[in-house]
Amino acid sequence: MLSVAIIGATGVVGQEFIVALDKHPWFEVSAIAASERSAGKRYIDALRDPNTGILKWHQHREVPDYAKDMVVKGVNDIISDAKKYDLIFTAVETDDARAIEPRLAEHVPVISTAAAFRYEKDVPILIPGVNDAHADLLNYQRKARGWKGFIAPLPNCTTTGLAITLKPILDSFGIKRVIMTSLQAVSGAGRSPGVAALDIFDNIIPFIPKEEEKVQIETVKILGRLMDSYIQDASIKVSCTCTRVPVIDGHTESVFVESVNECMPEDVKNAMLRYSRNVSIKDLPSAPRDYIYVHDDPSRPQPRLDRDMNDGMTTVVGRIRKDTAFDNGVKYVLLSHNEKMGSAKGAVLLAEMLKVKDLL
Amino acid sequence: MLSVAIIGATGVVGQEFIVALDKHPWFEVSAIAASERSAGKRYIDALRDPNTGILKWHQHREVPDYAKDMVVKGVNDIISDAKKYDLIFTAVETDDARAIEPRLAEHVPVISTAAAFRYEKDVPILIPGVNDAHADLLNYQRKARGWKGFIAPLPNCTTTGLAITLKPILDSFGIKRVIMTSLQAVSGAGRSPGVAALDIFDNIIPFIPKEEEKVQIETVKILGRLMDSYIQDASIKVSCTCTRVPVIDGHTESVFVESVNECMPEDVKNAMLRYSRNVSIKDLPSAPRDYIYVHDDPSRPQPRLDRDMNDGMTTVVGRIRKDTAFDNGVKYVLLSHNEKMGSAKGAVLLAEMLKVKDLL
Amino acid sequence: MLSVAIIGATGVVGQEFIVALDKHPWFEVSAIAASERSAGKRYIDALRDPNTGILKWHQHREVPDYAKDMVVKGVNDIISDAKKYDLIFTAVETDDARAIEPRLAEHVPVISTAAAFRYEKDVPILIPGVNDAHADLLNYQRKARGWKGFIAPLPNCTTTGLAITLKPILDSFGIKRVIMTSLQAVSGAGRSPGVAALDIFDNIIPFIPKEEEKVQIETVKILGRLMDSYIQDASIKVSCTCTRVPVIDGHTESVFVESVNECMPEDVKNAMLRYSRNVSIKDLPSAPRDYIYVHDDPSRPQPRLDRDMNDGMTTVVGRIRKDTAFDNGVKYVLLSHNEKMGSAKGAVLLAEMLKVKDLL
Amino acid sequence: MLSVAIIGATGVVGQEFIVALDKHPWFEVSAIAASERSAGKRYIDALRDPNTGILKWHQHREVPDYAKDMVVKGVNDIISDAKKYDLIFTAVETDDARAIEPRLAEHVPVISTAAAFRYEKDVPILIPGVNDAHADLLNYQRKARGWKGFIAPLPNCTTTGLAITLKPILDSFGIKRVIMTSLQAVSGAGRSPGVAALDIFDNIIPFIPKEEEKVQIETVKILGRLMDSYIQDASIKVSCTCTRVPVIDGHTESVFVESVNECMPEDVKNAMLRYSRNVSIKDLPSAPRDYIYVHDDPSRPQPRLDRDMNDGMTTVVGRIRKDTAFDNGVKYVLLSHNEKMGSAKGAVLLAEMLKVKDLL
Repeated sequence: MLSVAIIGATGVVGQEFIVALDKHPWFEVSAIAASERSAGKRYIDALRDPNTGILKWHQHREVPDYAKDMVVKGVNDIISDAKKYDLIFTAVETDDARAIEPRLAEHVPVISTAAAFRYEKDVPILIPGVNDAHADLLNYQRKARGWKGFIAPLPNCTTTGLAITLKPILDSFGIKRVIMTSLQAVSGAGRSPGVAALDIFDNIIPFIPKEEEKVQIETVKILGRLMDSYIQDASIKVSCTCTRVPVIDGHTESVFVESVNECMPEDVKNAMLRYSRNVSIKDLPSAPRDYIYVHDDPSRPQPRLDRDMNDGMTTVVGRIRKDTAFDNGVKYVLLSHNEKMGSAKGAVLLAEMLKVKDLL
Repeated sequence: MLSVAIIGATGVVGQEFIVALDKHPWFEVSAIAASERSAGKRYIDALRDPNTGILKWHQHREVPDYAKDMVVKGVNDIISDAKKYDLIFTAVETDDARAIEPRLAEHVPVISTAAAFRYEKDVPILIPGVNDAHADLLNYQRKARGWKGFIAPLPNCTTTGLAITLKPILDSFGIKRVIMTSLQAVSGAGRSPGVAALDIFDNIIPFIPKEEEKVQIETVKILGRLMDSYIQDASIKVSCTCTRVPVIDGHTESVFVESVNECMPEDVKNAMLRYSRNVSIKDLPSAPRDYIYVHDDPSRPQPRLDRDMNDGMTTVVGRIRKDTAFDNGVKYVLLSHNEKMGSAKGAVLLAEMLKVKDLL
Repeated sequence: MLSVAIIGATGVVGQEFIVALDKHPWFEVSAIAASERSAGKRYIDALRDPNTGILKWHQHREVPDYAKDMVVKGVNDIISDAKKYDLIFTAVETDDARAIEPRLAEHVPVISTAAAFRYEKDVPILIPGVNDAHADLLNYQRKARGWKGFIAPLPNCTTTGLAITLKPILDSFGIKRVIMTSLQAVSGAGRSPGVAALDIFDNIIPFIPKEEEKVQIETVKILGRLMDSYIQDASIKVSCTCTRVPVIDGHTESVFVESVNECMPEDVKNAMLRYSRNVSIKDLPSAPRDYIYVHDDPSRPQPRLDRDMNDGMTTVVGRIRKDTAFDNGVKYVLLSHNEKMGSAKGAVLLAEMLKVKDLL
Repeated sequence: MLSVAIIGATGVVGQEFIVALDKHPWFEVSAIAASERSAGKRYIDALRDPNTGILKWHQHREVPDYAKDMVVKGVNDIISDAKKYDLIFTAVETDDARAIEPRLAEHVPVISTAAAFRYEKDVPILIPGVNDAHADLLNYQRKARGWKGFIAPLPNCTTTGLAITLKPILDSFGIKRVIMTSLQAVSGAGRSPGVAALDIFDNIIPFIPKEEEKVQIETVKILGRLMDSYIQDASIKVSCTCTRVPVIDGHTESVFVESVNECMPEDVKNAMLRYSRNVSIKDLPSAPRDYIYVHDDPSRPQPRLDRDMNDGMTTVVGRIRKDTAFDNGVKYVLLSHNEKMGSAKGAVLLAEMLKVKDLL
């Protein structure tokens, strides 16, 4: 068993790590850390609102037994003891990540849900099953920075489903252009305080600060080519509009692709399914039965009906049609669970992939 | 005063006609008709559920006084007396429209919210302010069909805002391609029964039967060129994905445009505002103060905040940005009130425009 | 194995029966029936919208394999072959129930989710665990009507949780008066068409036709005393206001009880838990681990967080406090899953109880 | 014109004051104050999120012109200059109110939306039209505390509609007991951050900290009798359960009343309407056309349809029925706009009443 620590364990994403690592066959949670306000408390107590006694636990299943009585550490405790762990998962805000993660990575691998280091040259943005080969850049990063560990960030949760579904299209048909409009769930904005009910009830907010830039940059990096010391972006033009919609969980994306070669909807479907069947990570503990699932029912995917498929680890696709704006093109709708494959459980899958590659 | 009749007056769109024509300076409602079940009742009684006594009235303001005591006629009464009216507004399902409207149009102009005749060669799809010149095709239609009247259908409510915002871009920069994803309100699906709460709560339905085809066909027809006996489609490629979202009123559309000539966001904004200031119909009784309104606040337009601007007759635009997928392109978000400018009140505006053109 | 038939199998409640009986240890579904429109089709095909191909399946899990290929019968087929079954579950509208159920009950026991026979003197309204003894009235009914079977209706789904939570209070403290306001989920209104999104978004509908009368009458009957040929109502005064709220599943009820004897909140909690631990039906296959669960967290129960506890078979209680309007009294909030314990799965639990009592 | 200041002008309630006082015939806004972070900025700039440029303005109509360019003061500026104003409206949190309001009241009348002083003996809780006579206690307060001004707090927004509808019942029939369950809108919880979408979507939260106690205490005080130096509570027993529901604006309350004398629903309706017609404040500038409106349609009041009646100043009642739990009793449903009559606009109405009574 590898010994892992979770930083930011009381937040929403941290809670997902607590759940995703329950009874994990390879990883054992040895320490959990949060802000100074929580440090020293039992985990279950740290989750409780001090004024009202209300438990601030946002998962469907109850708090796993293993975590309830763990004493929450301060972040500095983890930093000073970093060598004791084989791997650290971080679930903190970008600014905190920028300060904390390098100090941890000096000693130990760090898998991060924050954006802080995603855009640095020697940092790959890994989606297990899509660009596993980019993991080699972590060795370069290690050497270049003189670290024992490394920082391996997840992509933005809106990028995940897009990159996963573009990959088989890129491999089979080539891609010139991607135009995407997202309909993102409120859970993507977290809970501290997250989206106010008053802002999103009976409403759409057609703007999520910095989101579009992230998706555009990350997609071409993830689909790019590993060079010795960096990733060369894929030469795909990507344009997004990201919106927030009144849906609890699950990001829906409307995607239009101009391909290099002719691609008929049936061929795209088959390419996706073939890719899904053969995906590199299919035997890992957290991998879903279906990496991509394709609906023929034109009314799917729907977030409420489809987001929990295979515990939120499947990217669900539907409405694959010939595009009418491009000579060669296809359009489709995808659904990706932003709090599962797009977040902590996706990070655990990444850890599994890195372990198999002997990077942990 | 012109004498008008409303067919389908008890339905949602019919109710909007009742409201939109209240105290109208040019049009007087002389007759209202509905299904046989309602015929013979006072309007206010026809609106009442016979079992529960609940009033099935779906407008924000109360039933206008002028309509309350009008006795609802059967549709056949209107058909047999069609000559008594100067104009008939229809708000019926497509199949009924196909049967009823030609029989009315033999005698009197018909403005229709149904799709039944939109795609016939001698039928223009008119948006007042966008393609007024196409109204001349109504004279051709009249002659060709040997009618005293004509059928003038509105476009689909999702087409309206798209065509309105594309028009100034087309005129100033030329358009090659349009890619649009809609986030459509549930009121667009009507109320008999309309969208079930169980289907759309906490959910997106990424499919609205036939909607995308309608928008794609109508947009190029509306932006096309009037020939002697038909409209030649604009040579623009249009591709849409239409979704239903949990919003009560107001269709949001995420639009990506590849233009012929370079178009910077500021130039597009100015083109829209200039067009809005000079729009042909600006002095008509139902015209809004702003035909197009452009927000600089990046979080707008939002349906709950913006849909009621100028009583729902303004197309509200925001997030005009340079597109990153095309060499020359722009992307933006628009909001159009599907039950106002996109429906009955838009039909009344159309009637006003036709009157000014001496077509009534 | 007992051979059972389901009538109304394509509707929402019928679908729940299909799910609740999957792999049941005692009951085997031998036939499913629906309207003539569906008869002759495979079940999976009967669920499909003939126009759009969209599957009208409203359960979280997929259609069970055993049901997919069963050929749907017409209701008359079941009636004419009624003797072939050991038990029939009906999930049809009240008027249909009134016509169909007696013809079935001539030959075979019928468990019904409809209200048609609930209020007849020789018909008990059974909640397994609350008034099992009332089942003896079924033998009287049998004889009195000259039937081989009987009709055993479930209560209204709003009555279920109320009666379950009142029972231990009644037994321990006596009850004079009950005042209840319900906040009912939209799924309680079914799906054909059910509650329209336009009516309930951002809204409360403070009226559900006939619901309050049902709850008031049923509660005192269920908590009443079995006499030879009828149930004598409990002498409790009940007053309800029933409202519809924008929640998908799970009825919340705010309950105020005036008790005969003093009842402190802690005592009420203990009475509920003791009752739950010892409930008669606790070893039946469909019985939940907790018959009643009591939260100490004052923010619970919440429908989204608590409705699925033990697959929706647990009545979840919280906020037990001393009432301030009565000298002796208590108030609390309960949550009951209207589509599980309050519907088909509760009916299966009832069937299990009747089997143990040798009534099947 | 009286010169007024608004403290807490950038918050949600403060914004309502800004709107409610626009073009007011008697009051002129001379100063607006907010936290130090906003002080020194133009009002329109203080409303803008410094990071995103998004305007944090939560009213349906735009920011009134008179306020846009006013420079926001710090609270201490108002305190040190308090004598310059004839009246101060405060819209701050309870703790801040406790600190600030007495320092203002030394010099000038203060109308407060906070709970800080509501429960002190020499402080009346005033609802204009219900207990105007209690305003005399302000003179006692003035003298007892040696202040030139006084503190006059509004009740909790959930109390307002309850007290208004109980008043005519109390006057005509006497009241023994009131049992109320509220279904409160999310706007009642404010916006900083207010209710998180993730907590209330598809959900009910059956607990609002301290709310029930407030309503219970305030109701009997408001309906009580003015003695020389205090209010003697009405001898009515009140019990509430307060819940939060997914509704934007408008508190719905399900009320059960045990009366002293027999009260038939028709008589209660007539008592309410008579009271409404003759209400003391009916000629004040902010008074609604209907103080109480009674629906006969059993499906009303509904928050989305009825909350904006008379700009949210009318208490809308429906479903008046004989109660079945009490020998003499009535039950009904009420709707009160928590952000209008229950908040700033109600405070302005109170100011008008106090002016007419020469207390300003």
